[in-house]
Amino acid sequence: MSKSEMADEALFLLLHNEMVSGLYRTAEQGDGENGRCITKLENMGFRVGQGLIERFTKDTARFKDELDIMKFICKDFWTTVFKKQIDNLRTNHQGIYVLQDNKFRLLTQMSAGKQYLEHAPKYLAFTCGLIRGALSNLGIKSIVTAEVSTMPACKFRFFLAECLYFMHNLYPEVNDINYCYWKLQL
Amino acid sequence: MSKSEMADEALFLLLHNEMVSGLYRTAEQGDGENGRCITKLENMGFRVGQGLIERFTKDTARFKDELDIMKFICKDFWTTVFKKQIDNLRTNHQGIYVLQDNKFRLLTQMSAGKQYLEHAPKYLAFTCGLIRGALSNLGIKSIVTAEVSTMPACKFRFFLAECLYFMHNLYPEVNDINYCYWKLQL
Repeated sequence: MSKSEMADEALFLLLHNEMVSGLYRTAEQGDGENGRCITKLENMGFRVGQGLIERFTKDTARFKDELDIMKFICKDFWTTVFKKQIDNLRTNHQGIYVLQDNKFRLLTQMSAGKQYLEHAPKYLAFTCGLIRGALSNLGIKSIVTAEVSTMPACKFRFFLAECLYFMHNLYPEVNDINYCYWKLQL
Repeated sequence: MSKSEMADEALFLLLHNEMVSGLYRTAEQGDGENGRCITKLENMGFRVGQGLIERFTKDTARFKDELDIMKFICKDFWTTVFKKQIDNLRTNHQGIYVLQDNKFRLLTQMSAGKQYLEHAPKYLAFTCGLIRGALSNLGIKSIVTAEVSTMPACKFRFFLAECLYFMHNLYPEVNDINYCYWKLQL
């Protein structure tokens, strides 16, 4: 990695950290406050994702299909933002995709143990929004959730519009489609 | 500029915009609120600047003197963050430096006319902090202010510790040394 790339990456990591801690610093203490911060981060990610994909796909050929778009997200998009590719992509071919990153860049600065596991969601919300925003500008409505079991590995689940009706029947209590960490097993 | 560099730059610009607008969106309306947002952005910039310079100077030779540091900021540091060098560097050799960027990256997205001039300070505060943080980790205590007369050109003024005592005598009413847009002419 060149010096300039290293600095670019550091800039993103530092800015992201500032955004997360800045948001939590100004937030009041309270039960609902964590959820509100997560939603704000997710929304910020959404807008950044929209802008980024717009610039990024300006000169690329039109995508063949949904899977083609997903591959683009896993390779080009991920490499630009996180300097590595997604390690594993799975799908049920019915609108659910699971992307696994075994060394997710925004978690590598934290200890690999279990002690910071509860803090992981605030470092994932922005990225969930980022992908959702990117997909949205490519014409795909989705819900993106993230799950960490062992740091710094991370799974991102995409639920595309086609499976949402089914999901809603399965989990009628879930109303906020922008932010929910569903425990659905794929 | 390669595709990856372009995307890196877009990521920074988009994140910065989100940070500014996110902060202003959550701020309450009020007289003092703009100042508080500016201070927050400046502080965020400070911490990012500290982290960035740490990674950036890891393998560089020790700086000869103050001017050497300033040249590094104008060339390497500026190029990494803003993808261009500073256009002009001046100093009075008594602790005041003026850096001029004729096409400052964070202002180029705004119209070049006068109508958005009043919004310029919120797009400069982060950068003032960024430089102050970088200098601080290189052992130089400073105040950094910015001034725009014609968009997207911008002047950054550094007041180093040695001139602050003099400044304070000149402007005894200025107490917040972290944030002040002094009108001192160099």
